[in-house]
Amino acid sequence: MNVGGRHYRTIWPTPALDAVEVIDQRKLPHEFRVERLKTLSDVETGIRDMWVRGAPLIGAATAYGVALEMRADPSDAALAEACQTLAATRPTAVNLRHALDEMRAALTPLRPAARAAAAFARAAALCDEDVAINRAIGEHGLKLIEATAARKNGGRVNVLTHCNAGWLATVDWGTATAPIYLAHDKGLAVHVFVDETRPRNQGAHLTAWELAEHGVPHTLVVDNAGGHLMQRGEVDLVIVGTDRTTASGDVANKIGTYLKALAAKDNGVPFYVALPSPTIDWRIVDGVKEIPIEERAEAEVLVMHGRTADGRLESVLIAPDATKAANPAFDVTPARLVTGLITERGTCAASREGLAALFPERAG
Amino acid sequence: MNVGGRHYRTIWPTPALDAVEVIDQRKLPHEFRVERLKTLSDVETGIRDMWVRGAPLIGAATAYGVALEMRADPSDAALAEACQTLAATRPTAVNLRHALDEMRAALTPLRPAARAAAAFARAAALCDEDVAINRAIGEHGLKLIEATAARKNGGRVNVLTHCNAGWLATVDWGTATAPIYLAHDKGLAVHVFVDETRPRNQGAHLTAWELAEHGVPHTLVVDNAGGHLMQRGEVDLVIVGTDRTTASGDVANKIGTYLKALAAKDNGVPFYVALPSPTIDWRIVDGVKEIPIEERAEAEVLVMHGRTADGRLESVLIAPDATKAANPAFDVTPARLVTGLITERGTCAASREGLAALFPERAG
Repeated sequence: MNVGGRHYRTIWPTPALDAVEVIDQRKLPHEFRVERLKTLSDVETGIRDMWVRGAPLIGAATAYGVALEMRADPSDAALAEACQTLAATRPTAVNLRHALDEMRAALTPLRPAARAAAAFARAAALCDEDVAINRAIGEHGLKLIEATAARKNGGRVNVLTHCNAGWLATVDWGTATAPIYLAHDKGLAVHVFVDETRPRNQGAHLTAWELAEHGVPHTLVVDNAGGHLMQRGEVDLVIVGTDRTTASGDVANKIGTYLKALAAKDNGVPFYVALPSPTIDWRIVDGVKEIPIEERAEAEVLVMHGRTADGRLESVLIAPDATKAANPAFDVTPARLVTGLITERGTCAASREGLAALFPERAG
Repeated sequence: MNVGGRHYRTIWPTPALDAVEVIDQRKLPHEFRVERLKTLSDVETGIRDMWVRGAPLIGAATAYGVALEMRADPSDAALAEACQTLAATRPTAVNLRHALDEMRAALTPLRPAARAAAAFARAAALCDEDVAINRAIGEHGLKLIEATAARKNGGRVNVLTHCNAGWLATVDWGTATAPIYLAHDKGLAVHVFVDETRPRNQGAHLTAWELAEHGVPHTLVVDNAGGHLMQRGEVDLVIVGTDRTTASGDVANKIGTYLKALAAKDNGVPFYVALPSPTIDWRIVDGVKEIPIEERAEAEVLVMHGRTADGRLESVLIAPDATKAANPAFDVTPARLVTGLITERGTCAASREGLAALFPERAG
């Protein structure tokens, strides 16, 4: 989408195919900076330290990580090791594994000398595929926003979203935001409540920033506020992203999503999950029992980053010196709380049957 | 409770009864500072700008605000105006109104010359009453923790709390924390998950600080984490405070409490509210419809305060420059989600019948 009027994706290769460039999401919203990743190790750091994040973008970065390694060493051993290294960077997002499976399948049959070029081509194709998927999710989700607008006689549609499932979490468009961007561009009155999404504040740092750059009306709220807003009828629908969804529709997403789903259920507010099919983990059923939840560093909870009044970027400790923190990064929303899954093939019930009807070739 | 080994209350008059001293809660946990309030206007500022906060402590500060004004001008007009001014400082906590009713009832019959001394005496009595109430809540709540410990064969009892309903929110002991302090002092293995409680971070700033000063094991978590912890069986019970509870048991408390109550219900975790009787609003029934919810400044959401690595206190903007925020300060947890109300007279169901059985003289 647009940054200062110019179109960007979140990741792209250099013209010489000797590196990949990404928007460094750690400095947003205060600094817009593009970083160049030249090696597998750069990509590993970029994913682990969250220069790039969001399940679909992690998948895309993973693909380029393999491509960069094939440039350095196209051997079978290097391919296997690159896949292993990248698989270990983040445990919850399943797109990463999907991307590695795709890359391995494309590269293994080739002779080493042909692998680098093929890897860059396949990575680019995966990026284009992500853009197309998100655009399709946008079209299907748009119908839900249009139906809500019609029910409200053209009144403002208030969407609540959690974390950043925006274009910054993908290659472009975003998942949860794709319907919002399409609705806004079509002239519908759409307004977004943006959960700040502690501990890393991706709502405040990223979602608020990208909606502002695109001109979509929005209001930042603390993560605690969503239940109250729903209780007062101020939210028409919730749309969130997902890092992994099971074959039965249980949804892992940023920590706190489950609480919003409970509030939506309690107040009769539709709760939708924007779900690109590479985020479906067809091998598992029970999300609470089977999805590994990443535990991240306690510093993410204890230290906040921002800009001082005189323009310096500072990090501040918000707790007593000795305080310890726990930092589970994701939670699982059981399918029973999900109104529907918005996929690139349409919207379905959050159930084995719902997903199988749209993806019969995968549901097995 | 103790600060650095010395016992403190949160508020106390000077020996000459010409001022009241309070712990300035805006600087905690990084600075422990006592401030002297000399006039009604000082107290008004102290409450509005949250040097002191927490429904019971707001009630105590209100009483001293009236006393200080009676020292300056003990006329009927000044008494009426002081009550009006103080009533307008914070709209949600009902203790404030309770304290004003008590002060008015004690002072109105007196001749002006006798009012200042009587006002300080009545304010001191209200403070002592708060301490006794909280201690009694502690004794009743302790039974719940002991029962949980017994069920776990002496295993660690994990309590989750939201915001600060600790001794800093009261004159001493706290409401939600009173059972925890008593259990800890009695040698029970009790551990507290402390919600950081955005936007003002009273969990991270105040609850973590006071538990650390008292030596109670605790772990800080973001407000988003509670549902996940309950889903994984890591929370044995939730105990929170309240700023106003209706005659039928609907509970207004810090924004986000409702989300935790929903998660507790969904996971079969008992959800208790520590409720001093001055916090009950006997005149109203439906909390969602009838309790006014304070909307505070958006800066509380947009700007975070903390300490830099080199020891300076700094405030940092966490969102894009143009971002607007909404900041409702409280939400209402419907009685149906509350396992029990822990009052100074015992624990009861969150219902008209439950409260009426314990407070027959008030329930009318």
